[in-house]
Amino acid sequence: MGISLGYNQYGKAECHLVHVDRSTPVHAITDITVTSQLIGDFADTHLTGDNGTVIATDTQKNTLYALARQHGVGSPEAFGLLLARYFVDGFAQVTGARQEVNLDHWERISTTEGGPHDHAFSRAGSEVRTCVVTKHGAEETVVSGLTGLTVLKSTGSEFHGFPDVPYTSLVETDDRILATAVTARWRYLGTDVDWDKSFTSIRQILLDRFAQTHSLSLQQTLYTMGEAALAAHPEVAEIRFSMPNKHHFLVDLEKWGLDNPNEVWFAADRPYGLIEASIVRDDVPPAPGAWEGVKGFI
Amino acid sequence: MGISLGYNQYGKAECHLVHVDRSTPVHAITDITVTSQLIGDFADTHLTGDNGTVIATDTQKNTLYALARQHGVGSPEAFGLLLARYFVDGFAQVTGARQEVNLDHWERISTTEGGPHDHAFSRAGSEVRTCVVTKHGAEETVVSGLTGLTVLKSTGSEFHGFPDVPYTSLVETDDRILATAVTARWRYLGTDVDWDKSFTSIRQILLDRFAQTHSLSLQQTLYTMGEAALAAHPEVAEIRFSMPNKHHFLVDLEKWGLDNPNEVWFAADRPYGLIEASIVRDDVPPAPGAWEGVKGFI
Amino acid sequence: MGISLGYNQYGKAECHLVHVDRSTPVHAITDITVTSQLIGDFADTHLTGDNGTVIATDTQKNTLYALARQHGVGSPEAFGLLLARYFVDGFAQVTGARQEVNLDHWERISTTEGGPHDHAFSRAGSEVRTCVVTKHGAEETVVSGLTGLTVLKSTGSEFHGFPDVPYTSLVETDDRILATAVTARWRYLGTDVDWDKSFTSIRQILLDRFAQTHSLSLQQTLYTMGEAALAAHPEVAEIRFSMPNKHHFLVDLEKWGLDNPNEVWFAADRPYGLIEASIVRDDVPPAPGAWEGVKGFI
Amino acid sequence: MGISLGYNQYGKAECHLVHVDRSTPVHAITDITVTSQLIGDFADTHLTGDNGTVIATDTQKNTLYALARQHGVGSPEAFGLLLARYFVDGFAQVTGARQEVNLDHWERISTTEGGPHDHAFSRAGSEVRTCVVTKHGAEETVVSGLTGLTVLKSTGSEFHGFPDVPYTSLVETDDRILATAVTARWRYLGTDVDWDKSFTSIRQILLDRFAQTHSLSLQQTLYTMGEAALAAHPEVAEIRFSMPNKHHFLVDLEKWGLDNPNEVWFAADRPYGLIEASIVRDDVPPAPGAWEGVKGFI
Repeated sequence: MGISLGYNQYGKAECHLVHVDRSTPVHAITDITVTSQLIGDFADTHLTGDNGTVIATDTQKNTLYALARQHGVGSPEAFGLLLARYFVDGFAQVTGARQEVNLDHWERISTTEGGPHDHAFSRAGSEVRTCVVTKHGAEETVVSGLTGLTVLKSTGSEFHGFPDVPYTSLVETDDRILATAVTARWRYLGTDVDWDKSFTSIRQILLDRFAQTHSLSLQQTLYTMGEAALAAHPEVAEIRFSMPNKHHFLVDLEKWGLDNPNEVWFAADRPYGLIEASIVRDDVPPAPGAWEGVKGFI
Repeated sequence: MGISLGYNQYGKAECHLVHVDRSTPVHAITDITVTSQLIGDFADTHLTGDNGTVIATDTQKNTLYALARQHGVGSPEAFGLLLARYFVDGFAQVTGARQEVNLDHWERISTTEGGPHDHAFSRAGSEVRTCVVTKHGAEETVVSGLTGLTVLKSTGSEFHGFPDVPYTSLVETDDRILATAVTARWRYLGTDVDWDKSFTSIRQILLDRFAQTHSLSLQQTLYTMGEAALAAHPEVAEIRFSMPNKHHFLVDLEKWGLDNPNEVWFAADRPYGLIEASIVRDDVPPAPGAWEGVKGFI
Repeated sequence: MGISLGYNQYGKAECHLVHVDRSTPVHAITDITVTSQLIGDFADTHLTGDNGTVIATDTQKNTLYALARQHGVGSPEAFGLLLARYFVDGFAQVTGARQEVNLDHWERISTTEGGPHDHAFSRAGSEVRTCVVTKHGAEETVVSGLTGLTVLKSTGSEFHGFPDVPYTSLVETDDRILATAVTARWRYLGTDVDWDKSFTSIRQILLDRFAQTHSLSLQQTLYTMGEAALAAHPEVAEIRFSMPNKHHFLVDLEKWGLDNPNEVWFAADRPYGLIEASIVRDDVPPAPGAWEGVKGFI
Repeated sequence: MGISLGYNQYGKAECHLVHVDRSTPVHAITDITVTSQLIGDFADTHLTGDNGTVIATDTQKNTLYALARQHGVGSPEAFGLLLARYFVDGFAQVTGARQEVNLDHWERISTTEGGPHDHAFSRAGSEVRTCVVTKHGAEETVVSGLTGLTVLKSTGSEFHGFPDVPYTSLVETDDRILATAVTARWRYLGTDVDWDKSFTSIRQILLDRFAQTHSLSLQQTLYTMGEAALAAHPEVAEIRFSMPNKHHFLVDLEKWGLDNPNEVWFAADRPYGLIEASIVRDDVPPAPGAWEGVKGFI
């Protein structure tokens, strides 16, 4: 019929693993959620139901717990690479792997009398550190990032100068609230990187630039954030952002004789603006495969 | 037919308001979500569709934005009382009000070069400070609380000594992970309270007791937390907890020749244990009305 | 200190169970999510961590799977009663139980060539049939209901005649969209009821009355729905509704020379109106215990 | 610095629109959620904050409501094409557009006495019909699909023959529950299609093949579904699936002397298997641009 199997991958999604480092009485915890996907010679199971090459998704799950025991977790990037190499290098039928490792942040509880506690922690917000490792044969790419970093400026944001095309009714403003929930993903050049240090630095740069940029548009703020990250981090090839414009509308109280000098706002849910862009290093070739299935945009 | 209208209330739910204090260049923001409900003489609209006494839910929404402009927001408790009094004292047909005011936390962004920023903020986690003010005529009750305070101990938790009744297969343990997402609600005696100070202190007590209690059951931890809060805060009549036991299961790697000395855990979603209890001050009468519709339990 | 343990309950929440009736080749499936809570002599575990009376939540979970195997599930109400009786009648320390049994609906897939399939099903929407059985000693109450029944009328709804109090800006209308997501809970008198038949009839009455009532307010529609349910079902003592007014705002296109005769609407998320009321049978005493922790309101 | 702006798009996300066809007393409603994104000459706003070419996201939102008034909505595909053509053909700076139009299903309420009601509807489940129209200059692609179609077979599913590699502990089975929530996306060849007819037919083919395939793996079921859709629909170039394996684990009751002949199952949430594959027509070139940012996989 001229119909055939195209690109395919399979695995176990959202394996939630907590690793406790008990090497000293001051414990450390690493809380990750891993989605393991394998790519390779799996046509038979699709075409005939013959599972002779299929490493069961249950086995993939067991593997990641076992490897965490043997090697620890370390950073999401290191653990993703460990998993990808284990599968691609270890099984002939596996030609590629996609390992997504997302990290939830915890902070040590500081008690009134005892200060930082040895083994008690509290969740530090809903921001997630993300990582997708893709390995096709010997070619490895790492896309790190974060999502759910919600930030707001109560002033220092303008929006005007847009054209008055049909159906335009938005009023120009030279002082508005600018709020967004940053999703950023950046692709590394190579894998010889101090992952935690690079992540921490890039995250702080994004915060710095968001805070310190006097914004004329969310696009401008976004670009400034990405440009600064790339400028400071030669190990990064490109960075992508998906940033909702979380609208805050000034409540009009005039009809009741009240002014509202940018004090009382209605925070809207939907619809919302959505600004998405890549900032790229000019001399680096693109790597579309690294982004396959990564929620970089939309 | 012997059928009639029973208890009823109506209003506008989940009005999201952000207040910016711009009295100095160092802004402060207050981010609340308000559900306003009125109780009173509203039988006609139910029985005949006559809306002559119905203060429109849209009007309730407008009112809270207008009052925020005129009086500021302050604490959730103060704002809830302001709203309840406005409606109950201002309208003959309104005999009662229920004002739920939930607060999302933000923290000031600290920039690399400039330190704490004047007007840039980031969301501080998914924990929510909660408040339900109920006013029936002159009687006012305030139930404050928090939800989504997720905490974990990597050791210092045991569970054993439970009876071996039919269908029991759980293994006793003297070292497990204890994790929960605390929902706590406490009822105040009176309204002459420093709300922010009381909240901050109780929250810290809950963290202290969670961290420092060597746990023999989540029930014990819960009780210790509540008892300490009441002991330190005579202005609180009772405190209720709903605390899921967020199970972390030690991964069994023995079949592959690997030990697992409490290092690698599977964090499960559902089902989960659910521990709910009230800790009460003995000499205070109960106030069931204060808890009507409050998600204290379940 | 004059501080003591108040009301408490504990158990396992959200145990997801699928039962397949394979008694004939035409299978039937029952998909329930059960939260089991026990009440009784559990002060010790709170006060000292002694778990000698604590039927482990893991055991509660095992029990419900085992009882489903031995007795089948039947209706949510029957299964909830089975569980409550098992625990209260079987264990001296258990003086009460709360069993919440929610049912997800599935429908048989109808295939093109074969018609209704013997063992293939598709999920029938996000509506959930709910049930909370409460048993304190010999006293049993059953509160059944549904949640997530989203309905909409594209005409046949008016809203006017409300007072023009301060901060009112809503415009009166004699033709609007009326939309809501019905949560209804009704309490039965006794337990000798054909649960499925009663549920199916009440659900249809709610739909009938929503559709056929020319609405002057959502309150009026709500009351009509409840009154009709009670009138037709003497086995029901009372019914409670929590019905959001899911606002649909007519889009104003006048500034671009376009009319909009109730054709194009913006469907808003938040805030939303929230109408809550009980319809009660006059000669039946209230049963507040049956509603403890039931999300009937808010 | 050798850093520049890469791919970018912007617009308004999740505009919820309900269209009522009132041309006869028997109303029809169309409930869509639209995300409009524009691509083109928008470097200035990123680099300098000059918004001279930026069609405000607010304007994009207004436009879709205005076009819905003037032209109706019709199918998601037709409305997406209408929007894309309006923006790309109408503005020099807009070289491309991405219009995502998702449709929620409603069904007419059937009343006891009156049968199908003229203007009362109920939501028909959580399944969503999806559509992404991409237009770059004159090149238009349409990717239609559905998500949230949750299906289950209570028998007729086996899984065995997988290799016993390290960390394998899964037991082979010749009778299991197979359940998934189908996300399918298919790309059309051209735009001269009867969109509703094509959608309805493909959806039924997916249901037929899921139900009627005796499954040896979810991969095999997936492939059969896609192959049948392509075989029957020459207007479709390729189809992609993302299908979680929603695990149902047979509850082991042996330790309490109970058998369990595939009757009582625990339905797990996470982790879950995840099977993703494309089925393609061999003689059609790929169109990666059509899939940019489409959640086809992961």
